[in-house]
Amino acid sequence: MRRIKLTVAYDGTDFCGFQVQPGLRTVEGVLYDALKTLTGEELDLIGASRTDSGVHSYGNTVVFDTESTIPPERFHKAVNTKLPDDVKAIASCEVAPDWHPRHTDCLKTYLYRADNAYVPDVINRRYAMHFPGRVDIGLMQEAAKYIEGEHDFTSFSNPQSQILKNGGSAVRTIDHINVAGESGGIITIEVCGNGFLYNMVRIIAGTLLDVGTGRFKPGDIVKMLEARDRTRAGFTAEAKGLFLKQIIYKN
Amino acid sequence: MRRIKLTVAYDGTDFCGFQVQPGLRTVEGVLYDALKTLTGEELDLIGASRTDSGVHSYGNTVVFDTESTIPPERFHKAVNTKLPDDVKAIASCEVAPDWHPRHTDCLKTYLYRADNAYVPDVINRRYAMHFPGRVDIGLMQEAAKYIEGEHDFTSFSNPQSQILKNGGSAVRTIDHINVAGESGGIITIEVCGNGFLYNMVRIIAGTLLDVGTGRFKPGDIVKMLEARDRTRAGFTAEAKGLFLKQIIYKN
Repeated sequence: MRRIKLTVAYDGTDFCGFQVQPGLRTVEGVLYDALKTLTGEELDLIGASRTDSGVHSYGNTVVFDTESTIPPERFHKAVNTKLPDDVKAIASCEVAPDWHPRHTDCLKTYLYRADNAYVPDVINRRYAMHFPGRVDIGLMQEAAKYIEGEHDFTSFSNPQSQILKNGGSAVRTIDHINVAGESGGIITIEVCGNGFLYNMVRIIAGTLLDVGTGRFKPGDIVKMLEARDRTRAGFTAEAKGLFLKQIIYKN
Repeated sequence: MRRIKLTVAYDGTDFCGFQVQPGLRTVEGVLYDALKTLTGEELDLIGASRTDSGVHSYGNTVVFDTESTIPPERFHKAVNTKLPDDVKAIASCEVAPDWHPRHTDCLKTYLYRADNAYVPDVINRRYAMHFPGRVDIGLMQEAAKYIEGEHDFTSFSNPQSQILKNGGSAVRTIDHINVAGESGGIITIEVCGNGFLYNMVRIIAGTLLDVGTGRFKPGDIVKMLEARDRTRAGFTAEAKGLFLKQIIYKN
């Protein structure tokens, strides 16, 4: 028995999110079926991030324990032969039997993409939120600086968050946020941190876009964070603009 | 009666090409329906480029004569309200009653995209040809120089080309070709010229990729052009990697 770690990319458009749901097409369900076809085993999959419906990934992590004799570093190539075009495993390796993708320190990088063109870009319509209108990138960059660092992110989390409901901490550390792009084109917001609450990146992206249009000032972020109240921050940006770009584990 | 020129973008994935075909979903058919809903008129559309099934566009041109009182420069916004997500008009204006998008001197720019990663990129799977393996970009750039300029492009055209069958000239002028990107990522081939034969850009892209893998040497291009024989050039690269990027009319 070996524990295999797969790094998984997917186009979230045609999935009802990552986590298995009976009767719905999910990333985990499709991976389960492919691994069952490949190994003949009914494997328990553990995913690092249960991305929402419509969210994309270049680097989600999945582990499972298998009796298969396929060499660990070739596992991703083997499973790709059983996967549809919109999910692919991009790397694989063996990890310690107790290694867990959600209980291991890591740095996650998310990318949010907004299409600022007046007419929505047909090619990016599945991979960016359409957000036309005048946007000041400089103000967004200024606001992003206030979000970086360690804060209580209650104002930037969906109140339905299981962690918050159970009285868990909303304190997280954002390592950095990079806002790039230009008015009339694709604006990208890269957010890197050690952990994220439910909808946190989408609320950060929506709030920064609200700063870009002038609805909020960059300095308003300080009061939003202090308020610990979801209604004080900006809108939740659409799922289709969000990419889980990379997860770097510390061990 | 006014002649309106529309600049049209589309994701070619779910279309059977540009030109109307009974019972099939085509770009021209979808535009016709939207314009009929908008104006109540059954309009004759004239397209600049009859792109193949699967080919994308950021700048195809369509003209039609209408009695509509919608201001010409706002026509694209009006028609967009009737168009599906995968076709959008990005500009519109009035042109002279005899202006014709295929009989007016122009410079067309095409972009070809190849995904050189070992595992196909899930997000680019509809917008790039998967072409894994070692590719030398420098050799492709060298070969591209031999294609630039005025030549007889019979070797780089589908023999089913109506123009060639009718004894028309295969002489065309390529203004420039830019090859960019890096091994393991997306390779782009931009081809700009005053006119193109059937499948010409896809055969140029396939031939340059064949040079990249070492199947041909850059200098072989000279003999290929001289041969005026399709079997001497490289493969026809897949439609889904091709974008009609822009058409610039000289008047």
